[in-house]
Amino acid sequence: MGNPTVDETNTSKTTESLFTNKDPKLAELFPEELIGWHGYVEWDKYPERCQKAHEILTTYKSKFTHIPEFQFEPLPATNPILIGHRWKEYHAVLGPYLKDIPAESWAIVQREKAADMIHVLDFPYNGEPPRNKLMQNKMTPNEYHFVRNHGGIPTIDKTAFTLTIGGLVNKPQILTLADLQDPKKFEPVEVTVTLQCSGTRRIEQIHEYPGEGDELINAPWGEGAIGTARYRGVSLKKVLNVPRRKVEALNEVLLVWEMNGEPLPAIHGAPLRVVVTGFIGARSCKWVLRVNVLNEPSRGPVQQQEYLYYGPQIGKQNALFSNGFSIQEMPVGSAIMTPNDKQVVVHQGKIEMTGWAYSGGGRWIERVDVSADGGHTWLQCDPDDMTEKHYHAWRLWKITLPVLAEGWLELVVRAFDNACNTQPTYVRSVWNWDLHVTSSAHRIKIYSVNASNPATAKRLRQIEENGDSLEPITRPLMFRIESEEHYDKNVKKHKREPEE
Amino acid sequence: MGNPTVDETNTSKTTESLFTNKDPKLAELFPEELIGWHGYVEWDKYPERCQKAHEILTTYKSKFTHIPEFQFEPLPATNPILIGHRWKEYHAVLGPYLKDIPAESWAIVQREKAADMIHVLDFPYNGEPPRNKLMQNKMTPNEYHFVRNHGGIPTIDKTAFTLTIGGLVNKPQILTLADLQDPKKFEPVEVTVTLQCSGTRRIEQIHEYPGEGDELINAPWGEGAIGTARYRGVSLKKVLNVPRRKVEALNEVLLVWEMNGEPLPAIHGAPLRVVVTGFIGARSCKWVLRVNVLNEPSRGPVQQQEYLYYGPQIGKQNALFSNGFSIQEMPVGSAIMTPNDKQVVVHQGKIEMTGWAYSGGGRWIERVDVSADGGHTWLQCDPDDMTEKHYHAWRLWKITLPVLAEGWLELVVRAFDNACNTQPTYVRSVWNWDLHVTSSAHRIKIYSVNASNPATAKRLRQIEENGDSLEPITRPLMFRIESEEHYDKNVKKHKREPEE
Repeated sequence: MGNPTVDETNTSKTTESLFTNKDPKLAELFPEELIGWHGYVEWDKYPERCQKAHEILTTYKSKFTHIPEFQFEPLPATNPILIGHRWKEYHAVLGPYLKDIPAESWAIVQREKAADMIHVLDFPYNGEPPRNKLMQNKMTPNEYHFVRNHGGIPTIDKTAFTLTIGGLVNKPQILTLADLQDPKKFEPVEVTVTLQCSGTRRIEQIHEYPGEGDELINAPWGEGAIGTARYRGVSLKKVLNVPRRKVEALNEVLLVWEMNGEPLPAIHGAPLRVVVTGFIGARSCKWVLRVNVLNEPSRGPVQQQEYLYYGPQIGKQNALFSNGFSIQEMPVGSAIMTPNDKQVVVHQGKIEMTGWAYSGGGRWIERVDVSADGGHTWLQCDPDDMTEKHYHAWRLWKITLPVLAEGWLELVVRAFDNACNTQPTYVRSVWNWDLHVTSSAHRIKIYSVNASNPATAKRLRQIEENGDSLEPITRPLMFRIESEEHYDKNVKKHKREPEE
Repeated sequence: MGNPTVDETNTSKTTESLFTNKDPKLAELFPEELIGWHGYVEWDKYPERCQKAHEILTTYKSKFTHIPEFQFEPLPATNPILIGHRWKEYHAVLGPYLKDIPAESWAIVQREKAADMIHVLDFPYNGEPPRNKLMQNKMTPNEYHFVRNHGGIPTIDKTAFTLTIGGLVNKPQILTLADLQDPKKFEPVEVTVTLQCSGTRRIEQIHEYPGEGDELINAPWGEGAIGTARYRGVSLKKVLNVPRRKVEALNEVLLVWEMNGEPLPAIHGAPLRVVVTGFIGARSCKWVLRVNVLNEPSRGPVQQQEYLYYGPQIGKQNALFSNGFSIQEMPVGSAIMTPNDKQVVVHQGKIEMTGWAYSGGGRWIERVDVSADGGHTWLQCDPDDMTEKHYHAWRLWKITLPVLAEGWLELVVRAFDNACNTQPTYVRSVWNWDLHVTSSAHRIKIYSVNASNPATAKRLRQIEENGDSLEPITRPLMFRIESEEHYDKNVKKHKREPEE
């Protein structure tokens, strides 16, 4: 995925005039009743509220903007790439508190994220960093950490914030942030954690075959929907004081308020979020309000109905919630971050490659192999050129790959984790209707120009002398590529036609 | 791998006359000093004993039988397949106690294992069950459980047996079997565990490209070097009373004395063995004598020098112990157990397939896909046709696969575990010098004869009427396959040559 230019006309303000609902009862119907929380309406406790919202949305149904097709057609070369008009309109007609959420969320993006983020979806905000920015350090700066949202960004007064613990616990409790941060009550922990959206590299599945394509559910992520930070918080098992199987294992559920030594940004869940080590990002809920301990998997939509992994014969024609399995840990995966797909690489017989590799569930990367011939031969990254092992974090890698061949080459990366798991060979092997978990070996195409070949070096000089350019590689050269003498000499030696 | 006929002439007795060492000091040099242990000489504590054995073996070096080549040539169609003459000879020249071990081990095989086991290597004994026997139940009967040995089978008097616990423990201790089995001292546990040799399906790597081929180290396993049993014992962490990272995780180190409700057979480690759940079989030591707690990985040869996973550019020319990584957990894997490779399958448009699927490290199988077209389309096994999920055991699966096509077809299986890990597409992706961890999708070739096709049904009747046979498929039919009238009619309708 390239880094398109920012097109401000694409952003949210335009929808407001088209969709307003002047019903004076809206404030009463959908109140911001939770003290200290702005941009949040409580739905779970009020079925009648859900019903009313459903009625209003049905009234407006025919007027809402159509969800744009983005899989059978090229993605817009804009930034934001997708807008989410329909989701903005939903909020507009359920005002007065909700109507401003899209614009407010966008303002938070502007304040907290880097200017050169790739905005995959304006609202609900989804964004990933430019490829090269992610490779600068194994710790991802907060402003470049990817963001995956299913709704608006609430702003929460941390002094008013409380966490309610209920369900199957011995002692229900309500804790303030100060309670959680009090080392006399709970021992604070710090862990380096890679969070990865299970949609990372989805664009490759889309390029192979389209799948469920709603612009909110299945954002067209590139290789940047992954990031690593050091989180500070407390272990949920200590707070609950009831060890359960999942928390007995290597993976921990943390309640965190600090990210890379800074207070958690609003866009990443301030004042308190969950971080589940070893699990996909979707399990690490932001803006956590309640912990409700159950004796079976939650029936909340994100748990029951989304993040499901289907077989290749399951799709719109037959998918159920129960015939896919729930995606929890990421399998071993990797990506080439430089060079870029379709890049023209002029080199002296060696190409520098960089990228990441990660495996979920407490497993770590043991080996990274790269190939300059589509996967026929593989060269192993030197462990000195890989960042340290962590139970819950990726390893960045780099390698200088000897490349003799010129023209279009397929560069590939595959990783092996400590359980000897590796990646399937082609994208087709992992295609699934919801376009999750693109875990196949990552392949990019580059156009190799090996300047250590004398003929190529000569051509590069000619291009320069003629004021022409190698790129775009698809544009013919504007000067004659061979002299008459040279041509005559060669076709005399190797005649065009057989002698007899 | 087929099930070759037993050829008793291949077994061990023959070597004895050729290699005897009459030195009267042998009994003193290599004594059976451990009370209650027969077939065991203590080496670790006596460097001078190792040196002396090395000297004797060097003296005989030129006389020892050559290790047979079995990778560039077809495997013998005998049972045992490989003999291990050289290892028998090592024991013969180090007698008097060791010389009889090969014959005694073979006698234990005869007593404890099923008559139709496939004896991959006579001595040290390595064997796997016939494919169909492994599929009868998710619990493998003891007599059919695969056996992987690196040496002879000791016989140990369980009343004299003690386990010594030392190294980095607070309190070194010596425990009898009665101590371990006393529920007042240690809580007994029972776990269903699949043990898998990391060499399972090695034969596929050999068929692709040979690797390190010593007949002891790298036995040419088929798909049966895996088995599942219920083990009873105690948790090592309870015995040690020092929790460490590995034992905190899902995987447990058990000390067990019972297998499927029976006392542990001698060949499986009686009276006491280790079972490490979620780890490869090699980590589950048999005939355990001492537990020595270390603060770094052991330098014992099996841990330091064997069971290493190398990249594809590592081999005899450059392999080190430290440039491969240590194989601990198996990745997700699977095998087709019926039909057999190269089998002629006569069917009515549907083929029954059975097999197993397993993932190490506490992960379980979520999905099994099979293909009748080499992996272009995949059909998912119905969860009702798969055995239950266990954290540490395989799932057996079966499926009725619709097959229209006739002729040679490639049937394939691949599994997905709960971390969405799946298997790489082809064997070449996982080839490694030591031929471990054949984790690629399992492929077999069958010759499909679809008797629901009228023309095929007619041919099958003709074959019967003519007293001929379909198999072997490679033998031409002994009757005329088409009448003159039929031929004339067809070549009149569809002429052999163009009209003009």
